[in-house]
Amino acid sequence: MLLKGLSAFPITPSDAEGRVDAASLRKLVASICAAKVDSIGLLGSTGTYAYLSRHERRRALDAALEEVAGQVPVLVGVGALRTDDAVRLAQDAKAAGAAAGLLAPVSYTPLTEDEVFEHFAAVARESGLPLCIYDNPSTTHFRFSPALIGRLSRLPGIVAVKSPAPEPQVVTAQLAELRTVVPDGFSLGYSGDWNSVEALIGGGDAWYSVVAGLFPQISVAMVQAVRNGDGAEARRLNEKLEPLWSLFKEFSSLRVIYASADLLGLCRAEPPGPILSLAGAARQRVAEALEALNLR
Amino acid sequence: MLLKGLSAFPITPSDAEGRVDAASLRKLVASICAAKVDSIGLLGSTGTYAYLSRHERRRALDAALEEVAGQVPVLVGVGALRTDDAVRLAQDAKAAGAAAGLLAPVSYTPLTEDEVFEHFAAVARESGLPLCIYDNPSTTHFRFSPALIGRLSRLPGIVAVKSPAPEPQVVTAQLAELRTVVPDGFSLGYSGDWNSVEALIGGGDAWYSVVAGLFPQISVAMVQAVRNGDGAEARRLNEKLEPLWSLFKEFSSLRVIYASADLLGLCRAEPPGPILSLAGAARQRVAEALEALNLR
Repeated sequence: MLLKGLSAFPITPSDAEGRVDAASLRKLVASICAAKVDSIGLLGSTGTYAYLSRHERRRALDAALEEVAGQVPVLVGVGALRTDDAVRLAQDAKAAGAAAGLLAPVSYTPLTEDEVFEHFAAVARESGLPLCIYDNPSTTHFRFSPALIGRLSRLPGIVAVKSPAPEPQVVTAQLAELRTVVPDGFSLGYSGDWNSVEALIGGGDAWYSVVAGLFPQISVAMVQAVRNGDGAEARRLNEKLEPLWSLFKEFSSLRVIYASADLLGLCRAEPPGPILSLAGAARQRVAEALEALNLR
Repeated sequence: MLLKGLSAFPITPSDAEGRVDAASLRKLVASICAAKVDSIGLLGSTGTYAYLSRHERRRALDAALEEVAGQVPVLVGVGALRTDDAVRLAQDAKAAGAAAGLLAPVSYTPLTEDEVFEHFAAVARESGLPLCIYDNPSTTHFRFSPALIGRLSRLPGIVAVKSPAPEPQVVTAQLAELRTVVPDGFSLGYSGDWNSVEALIGGGDAWYSVVAGLFPQISVAMVQAVRNGDGAEARRLNEKLEPLWSLFKEFSSLRVIYASADLLGLCRAEPPGPILSLAGAARQRVAEALEALNLR
């Protein structure tokens, strides 16, 4: 199984005109590699893939893959509004040496199940890149039914799904339902950091993590604890991160991680306009949480 | 008031690679002008602006404005995910001679009210193009509060709002609420064809119409009836279009209008992938409705 354990999603530092700061991206990627994650999720939602041109996404891809130099598989966001654009982005990722593509059904006109199916089939077929289905209704405004995930999971080259982690009390039932519709070896993973550890304990295959993009050590320790059968330790570490989870829920993980990278002086980290940097009291609360947690 | 009465929104015929068919667009625009609409809404949602490159949007703009040749004001969709892109698109529209821009808060990361306010302020300020606020939660996933519309309406250059037409029984109350927060002369208009005539009867200033992009004559007659104080005639014509409204609600106005243009042989009309053309029974139902209505 290509996608399992911890996948760390860094931000993609870029300037106000959307030009990627490749040197800063390499530094983030190097520190993620050093922490021994299982994979890197480049150009995810927090990596602002949707806001970057094909040219800048290719620059980010080349810089990150050169820095990673084969130490861990790299999963790359290849989503786009148009099918032909998504095909080209997946071809770029394949050519650059990415292990897999993360494909979200980005929408403007709301899409039907058949449209999403054909979109995924075209990208898989025309790129040859293994794909992870990116199910993220809060950004794409498309909801995958288990039946559609089942249909897609039987297409050649579609190997995984990244779902929003549900509340802990329902994750086991959701996993059991999905297992009945996908082939053996198909990876069922989760994002939404605050509920993801519980999803791993419940039998999920992967955690696609925003927090691990900036704070990989504690995230690796959480996943290692689950692997060791020590759910109590994993939950203790997850509980420790509660001040961050609470800020994620209030301001979005993207805004909080951008503010964190900036406060820690790791890079000039400003989200693409119209998204505003956290300021004033919100930024101050992030600063206080980081100081109390002392994660880097 | 720049935007009042009927604004007709044509599709933007384009090929599978997203290249605009300028000749077909000119034909659609010419037939809209001939019907004596009050304005043309180029590159709206049905005009697939979100799926076209800046270069192709400029080609569409140049072709349409040349064809219109000043007969009616042209409102142009200038929405984009990034603020700097929206600014450039608005500058293009201004330079080409558009009367106004239609700006939707296109989103991937869900946006806050302050982010949307700053986005609109930047586009208005940096382009000098009068702007109509495009409130369309089904595509942008952002909901404008009356308070935010009020704040925006007091910015220089923001002159109108295009809201989704509510159910007929609440439109008068909604209009009354909006009138209290916007300056005199600020245009309150509606889209969502099936409820728009009732919104005009209730005192709305403009109808931003998908159906008028292909069938302008009956749409002009409906608006004329409202202007003449003949609500009964406007409602009778609206009722006549019920077979179309029912298809719009089931398949989306975009898919139905594309199928209609194709069935009528007006142009090669295929929506951009991943959106699929209506086929089989759905297409057949559109054909039957068009035959029964005999609108062109």
